[in-house]
Amino acid sequence: MDIKSKIKIIAFDADDTLWVNEPYYRETEKAFVLLLQDYLPAEKVSKLLLEIESKNIKLYGYGVKGFVLSMIETVLKIKEESTSIYGNSTTSKKPISKIITQILDLGKALINMPLVLLPDVRETLKIIKTQELKLVLATKGDLLDQERKLKKSGLAQCFHHIEIMSNKNESDYQKLLDRLEILPDEFLMVGNSIKSDILPVLSVGSYAIHIPYHTTWEHERVANTEQDHERFFKLETIQDLSPIIKENQISFPKKKQ
Amino acid sequence: MDIKSKIKIIAFDADDTLWVNEPYYRETEKAFVLLLQDYLPAEKVSKLLLEIESKNIKLYGYGVKGFVLSMIETVLKIKEESTSIYGNSTTSKKPISKIITQILDLGKALINMPLVLLPDVRETLKIIKTQELKLVLATKGDLLDQERKLKKSGLAQCFHHIEIMSNKNESDYQKLLDRLEILPDEFLMVGNSIKSDILPVLSVGSYAIHIPYHTTWEHERVANTEQDHERFFKLETIQDLSPIIKENQISFPKKKQ
Repeated sequence: MDIKSKIKIIAFDADDTLWVNEPYYRETEKAFVLLLQDYLPAEKVSKLLLEIESKNIKLYGYGVKGFVLSMIETVLKIKEESTSIYGNSTTSKKPISKIITQILDLGKALINMPLVLLPDVRETLKIIKTQELKLVLATKGDLLDQERKLKKSGLAQCFHHIEIMSNKNESDYQKLLDRLEILPDEFLMVGNSIKSDILPVLSVGSYAIHIPYHTTWEHERVANTEQDHERFFKLETIQDLSPIIKENQISFPKKKQ
Repeated sequence: MDIKSKIKIIAFDADDTLWVNEPYYRETEKAFVLLLQDYLPAEKVSKLLLEIESKNIKLYGYGVKGFVLSMIETVLKIKEESTSIYGNSTTSKKPISKIITQILDLGKALINMPLVLLPDVRETLKIIKTQELKLVLATKGDLLDQERKLKKSGLAQCFHHIEIMSNKNESDYQKLLDRLEILPDEFLMVGNSIKSDILPVLSVGSYAIHIPYHTTWEHERVANTEQDHERFFKLETIQDLSPIIKENQISFPKKKQ
């Protein structure tokens, strides 16, 4: 299918589309469950953490601070249950105050994580920028976290507009389109999350390209990652994006039947 | 002084300019220091909290989540010092895990605080909106916190543009002017914080109106709240704003000599 001179804006997700993010969270979670090994097996800690995170996401939103607060809440819940079962005879275990101190340190380290661009990102953005398309960064998460990462990435200059969103639902994309003053079919979103970057974008009537990443947070997972939609396309890497954008037209390879 | 048909955009700060904010934080802090009364006198806890908050602000930014994380860090610091002095003979004191559980609850209550508009805000915004001026909301803080408050306020429709900023330094205002595509002397900022809403705005060459609020966070305080600047004005209440904006011109009352 060819889309002739229609798309005016290409928006990119940031975390795990332009740079490494989720693996740092998973490393932090590994360190976190180890801190609690005196109390509960790793998989049970992870399960409880995910439950608490999912419950808190409406309140805390996305980003490191909410993650740290949910880790602390998990510890307190485990401590409470451990005390009600074993009483206060938990003195041989690592003290809760030590564990929480280390969680705060893990959180600060996560905020200061190095910024690693994914392969070919800078080159691809440069090539696309030579076209008469406007590039937008549309990322979900904590305002300060994302601004910090963008600054470290050195990519800010590539973008005409930066939009840091508290959420990526259909209504959030509709607001973004209004803000950018463009029609749905003039907008293309590129990202790694089917749930956040693809489905709501297709719903508002825009185009979406999925570039999968090897690590996806449980909360972002959807059952079916294969979309059958004329405005949806899947690419292997970001490098595959530049060959299909030429002379301000976007030609997607024909879908296999 | 009259400014004839120059100002195109009036931007309003939100917290403690349009709605009550700081008093909720101070109430939370009062409850927090009470939780620690077995360990340290209230004023020492508050002093330590402010030190830790000031150290963390670059990392955590503004908003409830960073405040909660700093409260937790304060507890852990007090616990650590108490243990090093008294050993583990602190069993008669309120357990640290209980205290931190209650801090998480205080934080969630703060996120869910009721939204109380300051007097005459809605009416004043309505009057100003009848002029050919664009109204902007320019607020510092956590993205989700501020979006939630704006939604609760019912004021979103009053504004042409909403800007939630991680910080309000000179460079942040410069970026805002660029984004709004206006010149510095076409922009007027209205807010309660000399540090965040007035000084950086005057520095970029724009106009600023200070409407003081009775409670100011220690971190936002500046030594001299009286500014002597031709682009600076002080009003008692937001209601005083509408009489000086007429026929798209803004006439400030003459300053007392």
